[in-house]
Amino acid sequence: MPYQPYRTDGRRMALLCDGRLDVNTAKTATGLLIWCPEDVAAVVDRDHAGRDLQQIVGCGKGIPIVPTVAEAARLGANQLVIGVANLGGVMVPGYRDRIIEAIGLGCDVVNGLHDLLSDDAELIRLADERGVTLYDVRLVPEVPVGMNRARTVDNNRVLTVGTDCNVGKKMSTLALVREFARRGLDAQYLATGQTGIMISGTGYCIDRAICDFAAGLAEKMVLDAADRRWLFIEGQGSIDHPAYSGVTLSLLHGTAPQALVLCHVQSRAGRRHDEGTPLLPLAEYVRLYETISAPILPAKVVGVSVNTWGLDEPEARAELKRVEDRVCLPAADPLRFGADGLADALIAFFDGR
Amino acid sequence: MPYQPYRTDGRRMALLCDGRLDVNTAKTATGLLIWCPEDVAAVVDRDHAGRDLQQIVGCGKGIPIVPTVAEAARLGANQLVIGVANLGGVMVPGYRDRIIEAIGLGCDVVNGLHDLLSDDAELIRLADERGVTLYDVRLVPEVPVGMNRARTVDNNRVLTVGTDCNVGKKMSTLALVREFARRGLDAQYLATGQTGIMISGTGYCIDRAICDFAAGLAEKMVLDAADRRWLFIEGQGSIDHPAYSGVTLSLLHGTAPQALVLCHVQSRAGRRHDEGTPLLPLAEYVRLYETISAPILPAKVVGVSVNTWGLDEPEARAELKRVEDRVCLPAADPLRFGADGLADALIAFFDGR
Repeated sequence: MPYQPYRTDGRRMALLCDGRLDVNTAKTATGLLIWCPEDVAAVVDRDHAGRDLQQIVGCGKGIPIVPTVAEAARLGANQLVIGVANLGGVMVPGYRDRIIEAIGLGCDVVNGLHDLLSDDAELIRLADERGVTLYDVRLVPEVPVGMNRARTVDNNRVLTVGTDCNVGKKMSTLALVREFARRGLDAQYLATGQTGIMISGTGYCIDRAICDFAAGLAEKMVLDAADRRWLFIEGQGSIDHPAYSGVTLSLLHGTAPQALVLCHVQSRAGRRHDEGTPLLPLAEYVRLYETISAPILPAKVVGVSVNTWGLDEPEARAELKRVEDRVCLPAADPLRFGADGLADALIAFFDGR
Repeated sequence: MPYQPYRTDGRRMALLCDGRLDVNTAKTATGLLIWCPEDVAAVVDRDHAGRDLQQIVGCGKGIPIVPTVAEAARLGANQLVIGVANLGGVMVPGYRDRIIEAIGLGCDVVNGLHDLLSDDAELIRLADERGVTLYDVRLVPEVPVGMNRARTVDNNRVLTVGTDCNVGKKMSTLALVREFARRGLDAQYLATGQTGIMISGTGYCIDRAICDFAAGLAEKMVLDAADRRWLFIEGQGSIDHPAYSGVTLSLLHGTAPQALVLCHVQSRAGRRHDEGTPLLPLAEYVRLYETISAPILPAKVVGVSVNTWGLDEPEARAELKRVEDRVCLPAADPLRFGADGLADALIAFFDGR
């Protein structure tokens, strides 16, 4: 199936999380609940219907959890969004019936999994009959091989990089864009994963590209946004992740950022999906990212974004101080305490170049 | 189209190089001419028909160049192989007519480009009618996300890495396997690109994998060959290549080699497809590959394979000596002077672990 862009206007979303409504698995749903709650009509989850969403996932205050798609449609939903992001991006058993229900109710369906709606001939037929659209936001457009052109673009590019998957790269990037917008600066968020695309209507899923063209796709994002002064690019994976490091490096070399923000979860000891492997010391990540960016365009880690979840405020502030001392860089928890410190550091870095 | 394995038995190849018969562009053809000339019935190239193949591309002595597929079929060809590997893997204008001609003559067709035969409904129909097979060797099977298991396999894994694309990684790997086989050692070549697959009937095109699954595909190759004592894995791209570094890193982390052989072309100054970027000093490549492998499984660069093409023998030997002095590692041109020195170094390295 060819790539088709996803637009966010006019949508009222029902977030499908049946049997998977927890902070880690319902990652797409929680991203949407945090960054665009005004577009969400309801969360669909049989197991938690009627309960308090905020209590379960820590966000989406006041948004109802309903047991069926029909109930969400009665609340105004015109779009069913698969709210789950799992290992390998496989469709959850039982979700197909919910999708068929949504199509019957006249809802568009938005899917960010590697398993595609557009590979399912029956879904395509049903959607055609009902006049609704199936969006596979994981799909990417065909692009040429990367030609190392992003580094020649004269704007300020900031890429978030991580110590692991799921450490807040998307969240930190969005928080920085919000802070820059608040200051009246010309800042563009570039999504590189399915949830970011659903939040912002920008970008492409770099991890879905054919390897040979992944850097080319990253480069295209920068070239297409070359007129913006500040680009904030959502990072993916981690440079030492056994499964995803190639995605990380394609994105780093393809977008050629001058500045990096290193993202970390304070409570994370072993790697996600590979708990046996300890994470490296933070300073080692700084060294790795700076070393491996250098042959294309030397990038500098300018600050550290630390998710301090689980610590009370004094502990959290003490942890940020410890990180600052360890790596000699400003550290912040931008979602908890604001992104102004990281924003200041980035502006100072680019002013000083 | 689903992945289908390519087998080498019983083939008599016609190598299609029309208008592209030179050392750089006809890379697939020259690989086959060097490593399995006994399977080649003819090269098809209108421009050079009747001329001496060896004089034009430096290999394939005595193999005829013919103007048409029909002429190759008369010489016994039962398979038409697209002999070209170009930027982006796009089908060469005019080749489709040659493919149709081959199908009409009852030949299978073997294609290593990103542009797929199996995306062309008319070719599929014609092949079905004639009972011949279309092979898209670039296609890969569906695999799970990598789980960091290669590093736990108890055998000796050697990966060739490069200072650029097209610096002899495949050739060096094959030369090492041949040398190990000559010594009666249990060595398996694992191809990771289209030409290597066509030469050996092993492996998968890692650069065609969806990014998220590339390391998983590399891991699968190692797990499937876990019973072999020595694995020699064909490398891809280069860790600092702006377009392909993600492929390189997926392969490095996915296969978790203990030993690396760094491949270089002595005459290469700027990067292929990006001539403006100078290559790094050789010692810097050693450092980059060792640094970036370390978080998964520390790999050591054990030797350097230098293509000394263009130098006479005394110059070539002096150049190898210079490389050895610069990086304090054994250096060889394995195709020109033999792979025994590199083989000795690898055996000593694994003996010493």
